[in-house]
Amino acid sequence: MTEPRYDVIAIGNAIVDVMSPASDDLIEELQLNRGGMTLVDADRAKELYDAMGPAREISGGSAANTLAGLSAMGAQCAFIGQVADDQLGEVFAHDIRAVGIDFDTPPRAGDPSTARCLIFVTPDAQRTMNTFLGASQFLPPEVLNTEAVQAASVLYLEGYLWDPEEPRAAMRRAIEAARAAGRQVAFTLSEVFVIDRHGDDFRALINGGLIDILFANHLELAALTGEDEIEAGIAALKGKVPTLVVTRSSEGAVAIRNGERAEVPAEPIDEVVDTTGAGDLFAAGFLYGHVKDEPLETCLRRGAIAACEIISHYGARTEVDLKALMAEKLG
Amino acid sequence: MTEPRYDVIAIGNAIVDVMSPASDDLIEELQLNRGGMTLVDADRAKELYDAMGPAREISGGSAANTLAGLSAMGAQCAFIGQVADDQLGEVFAHDIRAVGIDFDTPPRAGDPSTARCLIFVTPDAQRTMNTFLGASQFLPPEVLNTEAVQAASVLYLEGYLWDPEEPRAAMRRAIEAARAAGRQVAFTLSEVFVIDRHGDDFRALINGGLIDILFANHLELAALTGEDEIEAGIAALKGKVPTLVVTRSSEGAVAIRNGERAEVPAEPIDEVVDTTGAGDLFAAGFLYGHVKDEPLETCLRRGAIAACEIISHYGARTEVDLKALMAEKLG
Repeated sequence: MTEPRYDVIAIGNAIVDVMSPASDDLIEELQLNRGGMTLVDADRAKELYDAMGPAREISGGSAANTLAGLSAMGAQCAFIGQVADDQLGEVFAHDIRAVGIDFDTPPRAGDPSTARCLIFVTPDAQRTMNTFLGASQFLPPEVLNTEAVQAASVLYLEGYLWDPEEPRAAMRRAIEAARAAGRQVAFTLSEVFVIDRHGDDFRALINGGLIDILFANHLELAALTGEDEIEAGIAALKGKVPTLVVTRSSEGAVAIRNGERAEVPAEPIDEVVDTTGAGDLFAAGFLYGHVKDEPLETCLRRGAIAACEIISHYGARTEVDLKALMAEKLG
Repeated sequence: MTEPRYDVIAIGNAIVDVMSPASDDLIEELQLNRGGMTLVDADRAKELYDAMGPAREISGGSAANTLAGLSAMGAQCAFIGQVADDQLGEVFAHDIRAVGIDFDTPPRAGDPSTARCLIFVTPDAQRTMNTFLGASQFLPPEVLNTEAVQAASVLYLEGYLWDPEEPRAAMRRAIEAARAAGRQVAFTLSEVFVIDRHGDDFRALINGGLIDILFANHLELAALTGEDEIEAGIAALKGKVPTLVVTRSSEGAVAIRNGERAEVPAEPIDEVVDTTGAGDLFAAGFLYGHVKDEPLETCLRRGAIAACEIISHYGARTEVDLKALMAEKLG
């Protein structure tokens, strides 16, 4: 087994976020799934965009956000995801490459356009996401760069992308390739609705020993295990997932790695502006510590610090020197 | 003469800003015109974009920014400008309509793409702008909605757009239409390089009594009049421009309207984040007061307050309830 070239390679949605402040009344009027992520078609996306206030565009995508955080900390990363051959595709590709991430999935010609996520941010800093998956859902297994997957310590997969058929096949192929090369597979459950639709697949992967690191928030843990209590949920996965990370929003996070357990509170913060990307950046911090063989509590602390930074401003891509911030906070 | 339907109608570049923090070293390495605005072609735009860090896209364009501020204060506005039939064109159109501005210039099919301005923001909050004018420079005189121009109290023109031939012809036609309907014409000089190239045109317009309201910063005033001293510059325009507004960055602003003079200091501010749009929003505040027949000092104060808001964050579109802010500050 050769020395890995990447710390983390991720497969995820290649999305540009279209973000705008919104009133609670607008959320109600548009009948949005407050605080959640809803898939929308082109017509509904148009309808919502028309109703949205002036917006800003910032590259997003759950796993891509995680990689951007990892890269900012100094990790070597690569991304696999499908953009269209259009301006938003160029924006996505630019932004991910600009932080030093390798990204060579060829853009897809013709319709649909690059994925966009219409994000309504309410005064309580909660984000309500409506995603038009566009080109993102057509990531074909054939473009998978298996060599690159096998050259990464960790393969990180985004649950959201399990929903469409082609990327799911690509991810299954990637898991096989990673396992064959003795690499670790990390998976984030992403959203309860994904578990509602594909819980059986996820449980099969877990029971088959194919997931080394699992990220879930408390709601996703409950949906996956059927246990409402967080401790019961953790117990249900005991022995099945070598590393389990459970985030609990403002109540901090807990991780169990090979039987060892650690917990951290959320980082103190003056003002939460926009919670978009909190989970993604938590995963970034944790994974960084994990690939650098840091103590479990340090991994969690990194997650909490990165999540705290991302919710202090608009957008799910880091705006500060994350490496310096980590050095300052961790001493 | 019928009652005007709009307070202000503007003709300007329809641009999406692509903004990124940048080090002073990068500005030097790319040999950028620090603090200024430089027109770039598609190749140079690509080169600069490739060298730029991760960015965010926020609608911009000088006159469009001014209108967005005016609209946020409650003015009725319309915009005329050329976008291409592409995603950035949709973004621009969405953002300007989302603040209640009428915008019905049809998008232009084919190349070039919608204009974009690559903005490098250095740690001192200074913005260095590199504009690819794209479709914006092909605003044809034929699409000018003369009826709309004549239905606005003030026609506001952006000096930047005097450079390309077609929009210049459109603006000349608009000036004629506005004058014929007894409306006021406001003009912003935009940038010294524009005056270097078209100073003779501007002086002819002024000497011909076609400009009712002129906006200039101290550098532009000097370029226009050939007088380095601000008072000498003001004196040189005496009797030629009914309303002259001169901004001096952190040193405040001065206005002379029909012989009356007023001055204001800059608004106090905790942290300047990004100076993009400061002049545009100053013009918004001033024009709002002007069309509402407010005292000259109030017009200037509104300008200073709006400029202060815009430089406290990234981007040249207002992020707060500007109407409420004005009410709070002006009492």
